[in-house]
Amino acid sequence: MKYVRFRDPAGAVRRGELESGRVHFANESYALEDEAIDVLPPCEPSKIVCIGRNYAAHADEMGNDVPDRPLLFLKPPNALAAHGDTVTAPAGKERIDHEAELGVVIGEQCRHVPESEAMDVVEGYTCVDDVSNRDDQREEQNWIRGKAFDGAAPMGPVLATPDEVPDDAAVRTRVNGETKQDGSLDQLIFSVPELIAEITTYMTLEPGDVIATGTPEGVGPLEDGDDVEIEVEGVGTLEHSTRRP
Amino acid sequence: MKYVRFRDPAGAVRRGELESGRVHFANESYALEDEAIDVLPPCEPSKIVCIGRNYAAHADEMGNDVPDRPLLFLKPPNALAAHGDTVTAPAGKERIDHEAELGVVIGEQCRHVPESEAMDVVEGYTCVDDVSNRDDQREEQNWIRGKAFDGAAPMGPVLATPDEVPDDAAVRTRVNGETKQDGSLDQLIFSVPELIAEITTYMTLEPGDVIATGTPEGVGPLEDGDDVEIEVEGVGTLEHSTRRP
Repeated sequence: MKYVRFRDPAGAVRRGELESGRVHFANESYALEDEAIDVLPPCEPSKIVCIGRNYAAHADEMGNDVPDRPLLFLKPPNALAAHGDTVTAPAGKERIDHEAELGVVIGEQCRHVPESEAMDVVEGYTCVDDVSNRDDQREEQNWIRGKAFDGAAPMGPVLATPDEVPDDAAVRTRVNGETKQDGSLDQLIFSVPELIAEITTYMTLEPGDVIATGTPEGVGPLEDGDDVEIEVEGVGTLEHSTRRP
Repeated sequence: MKYVRFRDPAGAVRRGELESGRVHFANESYALEDEAIDVLPPCEPSKIVCIGRNYAAHADEMGNDVPDRPLLFLKPPNALAAHGDTVTAPAGKERIDHEAELGVVIGEQCRHVPESEAMDVVEGYTCVDDVSNRDDQREEQNWIRGKAFDGAAPMGPVLATPDEVPDDAAVRTRVNGETKQDGSLDQLIFSVPELIAEITTYMTLEPGDVIATGTPEGVGPLEDGDDVEIEVEGVGTLEHSTRRP
């Protein structure tokens, strides 16, 4: 099953089922591109828990070792953006990067979840761009200016149940139509159940919270006007544009 | 003016005015210690933006230099705890510390706020304990296990308007009645307006968001059963107990 959350022509927030390229709710259906609807992020996270260096080739391209436990960081709700939005980067920075990621949407309040039961708390998967301001990320102890700015977490448009997504699903970025990242979920160092077990050792996850599972190699810069596509095979493709003031 | 948010005997969430040691709402009043009410955190933050090393003597005691711009980190809503709560630390850690702080409660949605207008977006001040798990904080790039665990941000019970709080207000911790921290707001390296201007360069603040402004020197360990008091002169005193599994 695939779902899309949207604001309907009357302004009501709905979650419809995506079938044959159209979003169905009650007795109405809409194309994703229909200007009468606003596609929203697939959920309303109280927090986005992000994972750094979870693909060996990406850790390597950034000059880092692979961590021996998940490298965690946070994006708060101000970072959210939706399919079709324009992400405005912090002003005056040299390097803003795309990072294509599988997002895991949590379905129930949970803590101390063992790996063996972790998939029970997963509602589904989505596409996330972990947009990164490298100028500040390189200089900060905690990646706040670097990773938690407004619009730094475009996600959606689809929430797909895990059965839709193959274990080796491709995770891709295209910028202005050109492929920049082309990894696969079977390259994840820490699996989705391992991440849920580790995070919930410390934190309660709420329904709608998102885990952004890390990015494969090939991250690179976004310039003013760039159109970004983040694809997770079996889920769909998130699109956003870029503004560089 | 001083306010206390609480759940009344019927279960309704109310914000009452604190006068002469009692909380008044409509034609009822309660003592803070009244078991018929539950004191709640003074607000419902979508994020708590915390400042590290904002007192020179504390940076020094931790072996750190004073930063040349505010050191930012985040606590998400799962970290919230209220006056009178028991904070359960992550299991099996050696060192859990108290950190008394002035909390700034934001009153309106804002971004790109200049210093000269920053106090206009402040609803009031509260007391925060930035409870810290040093075992993990010392080893992490981002302080998530170290600072963002459940219960790591007890706050309250009072929200006081800024006119109640002197510029040199004392910021104190007592553990089991013994004074451990005794600093003053006039020792802040970055002022409240400077912090608001810097944070809103990157992030939108929402009503109820909290800025935890950093801790003075004297941080130290909390053991199982310890009773903690965090006092900000002119605001009030936050109390919580400690469980160390």
